[in-house]
Amino acid sequence: MLGQTTGWDDTIVALATPQGAGAIGVIRVSGVKAISMVNRYFPSKELSEQASHTLHVGLFNKNGKVLDEVVLSLFKGPRSYTGEDVVEISCHGSSYILEQVMQALIESGARLAKPGEFTLRAFLKGKMDLTQAEAVADLIASNTEASRYSALHNMRGGFSAVLRVLREQMIQFSSLIELELDFSQEDVAFADRSQLYALITTCRKTVSELLASFKLGNVIKNGVRVAIVGKPNAGKSTLLNALLRENRAIVSEIAGTTRDTIEEVINIDGILFRLIDTAGIRKSTDIIEAMGVEKSMEKIKSADLVIYLFDTEVLTLPELEASLAEIRQMNPQVLSVGNKVDQMGEEQVVKKFIGEEILFISAKEGYQVELLKKRMADRVIQGTLHTESTVITNLRHYEALQELSTALSEVQKGLDEQIPGDLLALDIRRCLHYLGELTGEITNEDRLDYIFSKFCIGK
Amino acid sequence: MLGQTTGWDDTIVALATPQGAGAIGVIRVSGVKAISMVNRYFPSKELSEQASHTLHVGLFNKNGKVLDEVVLSLFKGPRSYTGEDVVEISCHGSSYILEQVMQALIESGARLAKPGEFTLRAFLKGKMDLTQAEAVADLIASNTEASRYSALHNMRGGFSAVLRVLREQMIQFSSLIELELDFSQEDVAFADRSQLYALITTCRKTVSELLASFKLGNVIKNGVRVAIVGKPNAGKSTLLNALLRENRAIVSEIAGTTRDTIEEVINIDGILFRLIDTAGIRKSTDIIEAMGVEKSMEKIKSADLVIYLFDTEVLTLPELEASLAEIRQMNPQVLSVGNKVDQMGEEQVVKKFIGEEILFISAKEGYQVELLKKRMADRVIQGTLHTESTVITNLRHYEALQELSTALSEVQKGLDEQIPGDLLALDIRRCLHYLGELTGEITNEDRLDYIFSKFCIGK
Repeated sequence: MLGQTTGWDDTIVALATPQGAGAIGVIRVSGVKAISMVNRYFPSKELSEQASHTLHVGLFNKNGKVLDEVVLSLFKGPRSYTGEDVVEISCHGSSYILEQVMQALIESGARLAKPGEFTLRAFLKGKMDLTQAEAVADLIASNTEASRYSALHNMRGGFSAVLRVLREQMIQFSSLIELELDFSQEDVAFADRSQLYALITTCRKTVSELLASFKLGNVIKNGVRVAIVGKPNAGKSTLLNALLRENRAIVSEIAGTTRDTIEEVINIDGILFRLIDTAGIRKSTDIIEAMGVEKSMEKIKSADLVIYLFDTEVLTLPELEASLAEIRQMNPQVLSVGNKVDQMGEEQVVKKFIGEEILFISAKEGYQVELLKKRMADRVIQGTLHTESTVITNLRHYEALQELSTALSEVQKGLDEQIPGDLLALDIRRCLHYLGELTGEITNEDRLDYIFSKFCIGK
Repeated sequence: MLGQTTGWDDTIVALATPQGAGAIGVIRVSGVKAISMVNRYFPSKELSEQASHTLHVGLFNKNGKVLDEVVLSLFKGPRSYTGEDVVEISCHGSSYILEQVMQALIESGARLAKPGEFTLRAFLKGKMDLTQAEAVADLIASNTEASRYSALHNMRGGFSAVLRVLREQMIQFSSLIELELDFSQEDVAFADRSQLYALITTCRKTVSELLASFKLGNVIKNGVRVAIVGKPNAGKSTLLNALLRENRAIVSEIAGTTRDTIEEVINIDGILFRLIDTAGIRKSTDIIEAMGVEKSMEKIKSADLVIYLFDTEVLTLPELEASLAEIRQMNPQVLSVGNKVDQMGEEQVVKKFIGEEILFISAKEGYQVELLKKRMADRVIQGTLHTESTVITNLRHYEALQELSTALSEVQKGLDEQIPGDLLALDIRRCLHYLGELTGEITNEDRLDYIFSKFCIGK
């Protein structure tokens, strides 16, 4: 039980902003000596006498020389991110200066923080539980509306609240059982077994809903893999460009913050779609081309969604039906999209392919491309996103919930088989243990080290 | 004269920290509406009622949804960097979140700042003169102790102070002349010509010292180009490694802040040395190798410093003398370094090469490598660095000072030729004009745009 630890005697320091060229860089210092250490190099004010949540402009001196003009942000514990005294030093954004400032603090006894160590301290100080701490890393890594929403929801205690309710229910269950045990000599079943049954059913329902949300959570975190497939000249590249171009236009307005990552990734309604390039599908005797097609098959199988694009002018209805049947065997999640409706006219095309559920577009003209995007998003979210429901995005949570689910089944099985109360009590205690692991109430240092090692330095 | 402009009615916003992965990202907002604009998205407090230089933790909302938990730094004008109201928003370091926050502010009327626009506003508000503003960009770009020192010295007004003294001297000169003009009817030379002569001599001395410092300034800003040359097997690679290795060890202690830029660059006593790789020098009939040697010759000629490395065991004294003579013809700045003294023993080696000024080292053993570094640094700084003297590092300053120098010569020539006071007054006014261009008192918008366009966004 590390959760009750009250403090450390060391002070940690790290660069909190990204490395590279920028106007400013921020160095974060946290610990019992944070204020006095920084003050040693910032002689113009006695920082310990200043109020918390104040800003101080002045000179950072080292070895009797002025190193930089800096702005200090002063947060006195426990009113800080870590719960300890925290000073943030905003310097001019030169790597050299930032390195010198960090070196100065290390020389006076601060230690370079490990990844996630500021958040670890916040957790150990009881400022947040483990699922909230983990959500901080997710929030920093978030790159779409959905991933940001889900991470912030959990950082602000969304997941914790669900777990708290679960915990209360289990404790209620447990106390009913314990009560029964106290009177076990008299062989009276105090606890209303039907009430116990209802409680455990509710718990199992919550857990299975959380487990079910993981698929969506994974999509939120890692994006939806979309394979755009079709015969050569169906217009796949044109469609890819039509999808990407509009997205790019929005992004590039804001000084290229995400320009380097879009390539073949698009964001529709806050969901990340990874567009996978595939070679044209056709029967071929050429070995190299066949290998390309084989790779396409693999991509179809592994995709979350397949867009089958065809040329409405060239393809016949029986050919379409055959192709769709073939693809659906590999992956049932198929959107059938007929391209180049501008050639024959939509009315003609609709007649030609009557009986199949098809979205007709013109990638070249941009006709119905927006509708295609909407359909893509609809396939994924189906109303679950943007609601207040908690979505699991973290594999550790998923695995712990699976354990919890198994343990809850055991309890239910025990109830069914009318096993004695003391055995039921053991099983429910196991459930509470898994729950405690999720929130970090029960944990060990190795596990914490592992969880926080995936954070970035400075957080 | 833009210097007296009092304000704009638009508010600017930019990311102040580098793009990329980091714990936090800071968005800077400046302008008359900075506080009210941010407050629209930060409902928990009435920011206009808060004191300047305070920190505010709360939720940043957009379209009724919480976007992020942020920390605001509030600086009320004129007590801010730009002199206007400034709010810095410290967000979680996700590009997506930062983009959303910037977009929100742009939607409520803020404009994306141009490069250097915050500093431009500080200049136009009279918070700093133009040379100080330019030093801000140099400070951010500084990557060694020397470049940091020189930039900070100028940002804090080091160069401005020198220019101010110059200006005062010229105004004194000018007023003496003008006085004489008032009484020109009486044909009396009021102004003591010898006093005028002394004043102009002082001015010219100051300007020529500043001009002379530009060579050092260039070295500070861009590094010293060092060519390590010598016959094959003299130990050039070993020396390069010995020089780089020790340096790398120091740098890598601090989480790789500069790791990507060192390659063949080393920092000795705060000065950047660029080590240039050269092919071995020897007579060769092989055309490709000869081309390599020709390239070496070019590098020797263009280097700021040449290290001639030779194998003390193999080379004879006459051979050494011949090689040195050849190299000195191409570049007089040569350090003669005898390698592998561990083979014969230093005493023997010293005897062998008596009469030449040589530093004996063993690159393999690391023997005297530190002394070599010291010699390299001594060649460059010769006592001028780390003093309080101002060093010109900016080409614009150099060019303006050259114009000023020419104009001062004209004044002196006029004095020598005893031209009438009204002509002298014209010449001295021209000097004051060039001085005003340096400090930005006389300038135009195009020139300012050009100067600040070289800044990074967010500063």
